[in-house]
Amino acid sequence: MGRTLIHGAVIVTALEDASIPNGYLIIEGNRLAEVGSGEYTGTTEGFDRVIDAKGKLAMPGLINTHGHAAMTLLRGYADDLPLQTWLEDRCWPIEAKMTDEDIYWGTQLAILEMLKGGTTTFTDMYFSMDRVAEAAKESGIRACLSRGIIGFPPDGEKKLAEAISFSKEYHGQANNRITVTFGPHAPYTCPPDFMKKVVSASEELNLPIQIHLSETAREVAECVEQHGVSPIKLMEELGVFNRPTLAAHCVHLSDEDIEIMAKYDVRVAHNPDSNLKLGSGIAPVLKMLEKGLTVGLGTDGAASNNNLDMFEEMRMAAMLHKGVNQDAIAVSAFKALEMATTDGARALFLEESLGTLQAGALADVLLLDIEQPHFYPRHNMIAHLVYSAGSRDVTHVFVDGELVVEDRKVLTMDEQQIYAEVQRVCERLYAE
Amino acid sequence: MGRTLIHGAVIVTALEDASIPNGYLIIEGNRLAEVGSGEYTGTTEGFDRVIDAKGKLAMPGLINTHGHAAMTLLRGYADDLPLQTWLEDRCWPIEAKMTDEDIYWGTQLAILEMLKGGTTTFTDMYFSMDRVAEAAKESGIRACLSRGIIGFPPDGEKKLAEAISFSKEYHGQANNRITVTFGPHAPYTCPPDFMKKVVSASEELNLPIQIHLSETAREVAECVEQHGVSPIKLMEELGVFNRPTLAAHCVHLSDEDIEIMAKYDVRVAHNPDSNLKLGSGIAPVLKMLEKGLTVGLGTDGAASNNNLDMFEEMRMAAMLHKGVNQDAIAVSAFKALEMATTDGARALFLEESLGTLQAGALADVLLLDIEQPHFYPRHNMIAHLVYSAGSRDVTHVFVDGELVVEDRKVLTMDEQQIYAEVQRVCERLYAE
Repeated sequence: MGRTLIHGAVIVTALEDASIPNGYLIIEGNRLAEVGSGEYTGTTEGFDRVIDAKGKLAMPGLINTHGHAAMTLLRGYADDLPLQTWLEDRCWPIEAKMTDEDIYWGTQLAILEMLKGGTTTFTDMYFSMDRVAEAAKESGIRACLSRGIIGFPPDGEKKLAEAISFSKEYHGQANNRITVTFGPHAPYTCPPDFMKKVVSASEELNLPIQIHLSETAREVAECVEQHGVSPIKLMEELGVFNRPTLAAHCVHLSDEDIEIMAKYDVRVAHNPDSNLKLGSGIAPVLKMLEKGLTVGLGTDGAASNNNLDMFEEMRMAAMLHKGVNQDAIAVSAFKALEMATTDGARALFLEESLGTLQAGALADVLLLDIEQPHFYPRHNMIAHLVYSAGSRDVTHVFVDGELVVEDRKVLTMDEQQIYAEVQRVCERLYAE
Repeated sequence: MGRTLIHGAVIVTALEDASIPNGYLIIEGNRLAEVGSGEYTGTTEGFDRVIDAKGKLAMPGLINTHGHAAMTLLRGYADDLPLQTWLEDRCWPIEAKMTDEDIYWGTQLAILEMLKGGTTTFTDMYFSMDRVAEAAKESGIRACLSRGIIGFPPDGEKKLAEAISFSKEYHGQANNRITVTFGPHAPYTCPPDFMKKVVSASEELNLPIQIHLSETAREVAECVEQHGVSPIKLMEELGVFNRPTLAAHCVHLSDEDIEIMAKYDVRVAHNPDSNLKLGSGIAPVLKMLEKGLTVGLGTDGAASNNNLDMFEEMRMAAMLHKGVNQDAIAVSAFKALEMATTDGARALFLEESLGTLQAGALADVLLLDIEQPHFYPRHNMIAHLVYSAGSRDVTHVFVDGELVVEDRKVLTMDEQQIYAEVQRVCERLYAE
């Protein structure tokens, strides 16, 4: 770990809608010790690593607030299908065949892609979570993990018990790179009485909750039919929102739903690409922002995206709501950058300085190669990052002060082995 | 030029919704002589170049059906503004300062970006077109060019005369890599009598027309107010659609408009990113496709996108209409690929085989590096191309049989000089 100096870079701190044309960063241990403007004039002695970052841009690592990492195993397997067919006829039968080992390799593929593309924190709700935690730990990425809980009998109680023991074992592991939240899957898979038990467990262990809410119109209609209220209102009634809550999707919300979410400071994981691709619709992000909600961005799983590219989500968030609202000043480039960094950290209930470049912040840092045509003219680097940049522009990635990607190579993972294992696993999973 | 063998590649021909897992291509002169499946077992003698493409995917070059190349000079200069402010207060004053030389460098930057990103044919409507043609010719890219015509007096006639002389000089140049169309800007900038003159010129010279149509709701409302009919109906009445016509945008269309366009086989350049970013709205692409219209994809200029990335347009076309229509089977991955290749060629009235890999077709070919996480598992390469791939995956580009990009380096252009000239130009243009 030690001390690293990065100098000569354009710096985007994500604290303001502006960039430093030439500056330097000093990393000490797992935190930023200094972020400076201008030429670095101090000594280069005493550093374990000095990076001349001329022609590069430094920015905070991106924060993916929603996903199911091992679903990379389903990438391209079930496209262009209606949601129910996609889920019930394609995803579930394959998932039923998955072993712990399969999930380990699928998660490795996801982490490899995310690290290469500048995602330094990811969120996961899945199963075999000890193997997911292992993959996260080894790779060096920051992870916010949930054992996904389907609450129907007979297995509901067993899954909740697993979630409790997983949180006891892994929360705070790997120098606090790994945090745990409770992950009741959704209102339609966790009956009310069961949901209350999850709330109690989350309270006892003092951990947040993450849950899928109001993703499709059908799900909302069925909730109203069954419980007389919307999923958001139902969650309020069951006490879920008395806990810190991250709600994924939130596509189909009434104005009253948004009021309730604002009242309890419910955090949102907005997954624009996944919602488009599955035909779920478009979340009312402008209204959420107007009411002061914290909205992070997520890729969702690779079965419904199909990549795990936070630059694409950032760009989509900035573009989509302008078009849908026919309002060219909706969701600015800087707001989209905040959603992918500072707002993402808040959405995950992680410390406030995460997602920024400033002295004292956790050192999750990207370098991008900006000697490319889409970064010229050198004028508004925030706009270039959001509207022009792509994940393949990332050359170096630090997480928690450690260099994990150097010149586009992930130092902590065996790329060729991951491809071979994923192919082997998928040949078995896809066999009739 | 000579003979080139590319072997060991995954091949996507764009002729069917499937890929060849291992195949080879033979290029002779400016055309494909053979596209084969399996291991290449012939002799490697007599080839000027042999490329072992293991770990790569070969596909047709992408066709950008709408843009204003030199607007790269305005990239990031005028973001997150309402359309009229964007256009009138930001774009036009800068454009008024542009010299032929500025446009030459802005166009070079655009071509550099497009070639690196796998676009082998671009469309341009701008001014100083002889310098644009020069940049296209030197770089090796294929280009469909229009002198943009604003038809108001006193300069309207002069611009039409320029367009006529430009078409006489450049149509068919550079081994037919350069083709010319007439480019009356829009119904609101070309009065009816003037538009008729453009139609006559297009008829005399036997060249198609490209025009902006129904991009914003305001423009349609003003047309109805002024002429009593929609822009589409007005173009029909003025005889524009008696000529082969490429209509850009087409965001605000009535069902009757679409019927008219179908009747005359009007081709469409769909620019999803630009329409979103400027808050113009979302074109009714599903309806157009249902009526049998040919829809190509375009980036529009870099002032409203902000990159020139056809992979993003392809992905956006496949995703956006699913979400807006809440229909996960709208615009399939393969249809989006067709829009960016074969349908794009048809939209530009270029020969039918362009945009495909098949014996006899013009040899515009890309190689992509698929030894990357987002291309695993190796299952559905069409889905991976559309939903997962990005422009930075392109390593090699052939246009008209010539290798113009090799290992991500553009062989025909001086990248560092272009960046320096663009910076120099922009410092002058942006000065108060």
